[in-house]
Amino acid sequence: MELARILARHPGFRLTAAISDKWAGRVLGEVLPLSGPAAAVRCEGQASATSSFAGVDVVFLCTPPEVSIALAAPAIAAGVRVVDLSGGFRLAAGAYPRWYGFTHPNPELLAKAVYVMPEATENRSALRTAALVSNPGCYPTASALALLPLLKADIIEPAGLIVDAKSGTTGAGRKGTEDFSFSELEGDFRAYRVLKHQHTPEIERVLQMAGVAGVAGVAGVDGSPVTFTAHLLPTRRGILATAYGRLRPGRSAADAAAAVRAFVESRPFLRAAAPDAVRLQAVVGTNRAVLGADADPDRAVAIGFCAIDNLVKGAAGQAVQNANLMFGWDEASGLDGLSGHMP
Amino acid sequence: MELARILARHPGFRLTAAISDKWAGRVLGEVLPLSGPAAAVRCEGQASATSSFAGVDVVFLCTPPEVSIALAAPAIAAGVRVVDLSGGFRLAAGAYPRWYGFTHPNPELLAKAVYVMPEATENRSALRTAALVSNPGCYPTASALALLPLLKADIIEPAGLIVDAKSGTTGAGRKGTEDFSFSELEGDFRAYRVLKHQHTPEIERVLQMAGVAGVAGVAGVDGSPVTFTAHLLPTRRGILATAYGRLRPGRSAADAAAAVRAFVESRPFLRAAAPDAVRLQAVVGTNRAVLGADADPDRAVAIGFCAIDNLVKGAAGQAVQNANLMFGWDEASGLDGLSGHMP
Amino acid sequence: MELARILARHPGFRLTAAISDKWAGRVLGEVLPLSGPAAAVRCEGQASATSSFAGVDVVFLCTPPEVSIALAAPAIAAGVRVVDLSGGFRLAAGAYPRWYGFTHPNPELLAKAVYVMPEATENRSALRTAALVSNPGCYPTASALALLPLLKADIIEPAGLIVDAKSGTTGAGRKGTEDFSFSELEGDFRAYRVLKHQHTPEIERVLQMAGVAGVAGVAGVDGSPVTFTAHLLPTRRGILATAYGRLRPGRSAADAAAAVRAFVESRPFLRAAAPDAVRLQAVVGTNRAVLGADADPDRAVAIGFCAIDNLVKGAAGQAVQNANLMFGWDEASGLDGLSGHMP
Amino acid sequence: MELARILARHPGFRLTAAISDKWAGRVLGEVLPLSGPAAAVRCEGQASATSSFAGVDVVFLCTPPEVSIALAAPAIAAGVRVVDLSGGFRLAAGAYPRWYGFTHPNPELLAKAVYVMPEATENRSALRTAALVSNPGCYPTASALALLPLLKADIIEPAGLIVDAKSGTTGAGRKGTEDFSFSELEGDFRAYRVLKHQHTPEIERVLQMAGVAGVAGVAGVDGSPVTFTAHLLPTRRGILATAYGRLRPGRSAADAAAAVRAFVESRPFLRAAAPDAVRLQAVVGTNRAVLGADADPDRAVAIGFCAIDNLVKGAAGQAVQNANLMFGWDEASGLDGLSGHMP
Repeated sequence: MELARILARHPGFRLTAAISDKWAGRVLGEVLPLSGPAAAVRCEGQASATSSFAGVDVVFLCTPPEVSIALAAPAIAAGVRVVDLSGGFRLAAGAYPRWYGFTHPNPELLAKAVYVMPEATENRSALRTAALVSNPGCYPTASALALLPLLKADIIEPAGLIVDAKSGTTGAGRKGTEDFSFSELEGDFRAYRVLKHQHTPEIERVLQMAGVAGVAGVAGVDGSPVTFTAHLLPTRRGILATAYGRLRPGRSAADAAAAVRAFVESRPFLRAAAPDAVRLQAVVGTNRAVLGADADPDRAVAIGFCAIDNLVKGAAGQAVQNANLMFGWDEASGLDGLSGHMP
Repeated sequence: MELARILARHPGFRLTAAISDKWAGRVLGEVLPLSGPAAAVRCEGQASATSSFAGVDVVFLCTPPEVSIALAAPAIAAGVRVVDLSGGFRLAAGAYPRWYGFTHPNPELLAKAVYVMPEATENRSALRTAALVSNPGCYPTASALALLPLLKADIIEPAGLIVDAKSGTTGAGRKGTEDFSFSELEGDFRAYRVLKHQHTPEIERVLQMAGVAGVAGVAGVDGSPVTFTAHLLPTRRGILATAYGRLRPGRSAADAAAAVRAFVESRPFLRAAAPDAVRLQAVVGTNRAVLGADADPDRAVAIGFCAIDNLVKGAAGQAVQNANLMFGWDEASGLDGLSGHMP
Repeated sequence: MELARILARHPGFRLTAAISDKWAGRVLGEVLPLSGPAAAVRCEGQASATSSFAGVDVVFLCTPPEVSIALAAPAIAAGVRVVDLSGGFRLAAGAYPRWYGFTHPNPELLAKAVYVMPEATENRSALRTAALVSNPGCYPTASALALLPLLKADIIEPAGLIVDAKSGTTGAGRKGTEDFSFSELEGDFRAYRVLKHQHTPEIERVLQMAGVAGVAGVAGVDGSPVTFTAHLLPTRRGILATAYGRLRPGRSAADAAAAVRAFVESRPFLRAAAPDAVRLQAVVGTNRAVLGADADPDRAVAIGFCAIDNLVKGAAGQAVQNANLMFGWDEASGLDGLSGHMP
Repeated sequence: MELARILARHPGFRLTAAISDKWAGRVLGEVLPLSGPAAAVRCEGQASATSSFAGVDVVFLCTPPEVSIALAAPAIAAGVRVVDLSGGFRLAAGAYPRWYGFTHPNPELLAKAVYVMPEATENRSALRTAALVSNPGCYPTASALALLPLLKADIIEPAGLIVDAKSGTTGAGRKGTEDFSFSELEGDFRAYRVLKHQHTPEIERVLQMAGVAGVAGVAGVDGSPVTFTAHLLPTRRGILATAYGRLRPGRSAADAAAAVRAFVESRPFLRAAAPDAVRLQAVVGTNRAVLGADADPDRAVAIGFCAIDNLVKGAAGQAVQNANLMFGWDEASGLDGLSGHMP
């Protein structure tokens, strides 16, 4: 839904087809608050997906991993480039049984997928020719951006990393279960999928792709092991990641803050802020990430903060950013007008 | 206010006087939803505080630290025992300039204060004769209870401890500032007082008082250094502390869970739960703490969780629990009927 | 769940059996934050309901209307008195097809049911001998209490009455549907079941049972027709009813306020307040109703306000109040200690 | 703030100056999530307001009524057209003492002000030459749009009109008072300014300007008297108005729904929906109003519903809509891309 909102106003893309079993037969303008030509696009059921690919340049898959894996191959065969927003192409094949609960059915295709987080992984040029782009998850985006300024500037060691993350309820998708009912969640707060969340190895992979020197010999972990905990906030949108690392000797709070300022300088969607100004209201509705950091030499720790909108920078916005780069456009095309709600 | 709610129904205490500049001249039943004799108690201004002490057995100070420090001495001189809910008597004198921003004006009285967290510090018998009891802060209560099962059972090392805590807005008291307005906080989430929160050294002190072997030679820290981060939840009540420690070799997730079960067994206000069931809705309105733990040997980390109601177990409830012990009553007297809201 | 909370602390009742298909085999203390003997009561499935009636004095039915109608007869046959919290026995038989969507299967039993709203209907003495008590709905309670002070004191005409009511989400029960998910309801507000809500004829019936002179000749309406609109608030608990009536000539705002003060005087659970102090925070967690009124002679209108907790005064609390009267006890027995949350 | 968000992306207007005592000396991009040239505009204090008018075509006053009244005259004298978002120019001079608490200091200027609600008042052509435009209030917009489809189609009588309205907290502006603190408002709901709200006569004036035949002889009321009640929702944005009128004989629910459909047809920002789909989530972030209606011939009542975003259609969005018409542009210019949050 958020992706349709962005594409409907994008200067380069034209939304010409939409696939949804739930809304099959209805036009997008009936079910979403859209204006313009996109509002007249009529949804088709998934059964018509393959025929919908005809004449299309790029398809965005906002489907469960298994469905994305099944749809990507026929799309590519039809000459359509694919941006997948699911977890279906984000990890090495060997990680799927443990973290996603299934054996990846198409490891050949998985090997060809290009995973890009434009501000973190150092492979954005691969997007120009990629047939299949795997778009990052919401928690990995916030977690990597909280840690990377401190890791790249050698403020913290690449070991013993901890990310304590908190997300609004829309991270779970549109579900009709008692666990996600208003009466359960309003006024509540708790962790979930503790030490089992599938975004854990994805964060570790992003750090590795960002060139962070890893720690050898940790079972099942490539690069630097990260302990990750997800919590459910009683609000709809936004993620705050609070990340902890061991401060290297001689490093200070000023060094940590300077590392953040240097990191955001050349990355147009990032902003630096004081740690207590890294807040959800600063990012909701936008493709921005707001970053901050501090350090306590007495306790030998540094803390990095990152706030994003889980549905924009954590999903649809970053997917459009990646797609902009696939087609050679400015990465902010169609995204800089998302100025969000005022606080 | 919460304290008045509890005392109004307590079988042992009789609420006979209330001091409040804001409500001077009004009876409690006008300003609070109380029933019974307590509702007829008329508030007096702070200027009448000393005369209000006459004939009273115990006074609870729910005042800023400076006011508590000023009122405790005349109360004790008048033969009244004192339970102070502020931070005025919680740390060693030397810690006040850095963490509270003032030099403690009465270090002799501070030295006599008895700080007790009944489930953690091993000095509850000192309450029977104490003239001045310093009641623990909300974050230190949740933080210590998240860590202690793992520390006491040697699941984690007493070093590199991290507590990432999240509190409802009532932790900040009743304030009329734009920062705490509904329009600012609804839908928002952020950290505050990062690496400067005055509850940091209090957590470290509780661990020391609980008999946790410390780490030598950390500047300004007695015992085990703890990194503490407070965040502001968009809800009114409740604290969740998520605490991280380095797993000792050979320890497992099952060991962590067993340590929690053992710890809660002899402590009537504590409950063990699965990590994702340690939630605010399980404790709001009650004097309970719900605890959980898990561990990941691959990443050499254990996580402890603790949920409390910041206004009950984190303030008024624990103060009554301490007062029960001061007078030789069952520690749950007047507290076990606080069955809270249903989820 | 709320009923169990109240009964677990009631001085007269002893909770000895609980029936729940969802929790069959588990003790109440596992699923609800209860203390004391009630926590040890083990739930049985509905199939065992009839055998559970043995030796019981009174059963509270918190079941859908059809289930209540089916269970009430065997309970009464077993010599157990029944308090039904559903809508199964609240209207005349002829009203069921239109408002509840079914033909009442047991009109003989329905004719014997005693419907009592203790502060409104003038039949509380009938409770002493009643075998089957029909407990009022949440909206009818708030709506009748908003209107009756003005109607009984002849401030407004018994015609053209309008009740605009707003309820927290727990009014809908524990449901796992997308409509009631947090992501749908947070930040939202809307009306529902417009002009079709089954509480409409119940409000009209209460006014008639309260002795309000009706208006003749309105099709399908006994007594004074009431237009009722229910709205869904983005919070969990509480109802505010705002009720409008045509001001009689010569009546003033002072008359309206005086009518409320007079009405609450002899009714221990009611409180009078200024119109803008009739708020959810004043009642949540308690069996109280807070009432207020104002009038504008220029526009010939009076407004009555009533706030209640939908789960307590609007359901479980009122059921215990009725049961207290059935057994000849003080109507506040077990209910006055529910002092609620502090604001 | 919302106005700056809209103007920053408007194809016709260029934001060149901003006046704010609070932010004097800072650029807008520091304090608001803006992109583009508007982000570089530096705020000046109010003392510099008059000099800021040089070279400006139109100024939007988002100031308290007294300040707007003081600033409008020098702006007009400097040849700048004015759109005032306050209540300073909305009523006849005689209404100010009662409803705004002051005598209007500039009745000559007030007489020249042009009040336009584009979908309601029938004077939009006056905007082309107006020097001073008075922009409607948030509640009057929602209230008039709830009532007018029913009044214009003769579904209800122009008498005995009642509007029960509910607004998010941003309607009160950015305030730092205890009444508007999160801890007071979260989970709460109540009415405020009962029968004293200054938007009451403005609603009555809009109906009169819309050509609704009035009722003679009501003291202090021109046209049709309206009873208006405002309530405070525990959310930030959005207004829902629920409006009641007496159904004319022979009119049906189908007539009411048809009247809404006919009314929205030629008004691009309006949408018709079923009554329970007129909800805040459908309008927040946009300049839209969603309308619905229903009727109950048995009870001789019709109900109209309208949802708007109080900060957009209820303030900044409608101001830009009016300004578009002042300059001869499409009324949706710069407003149709505000597609809002997805539900």
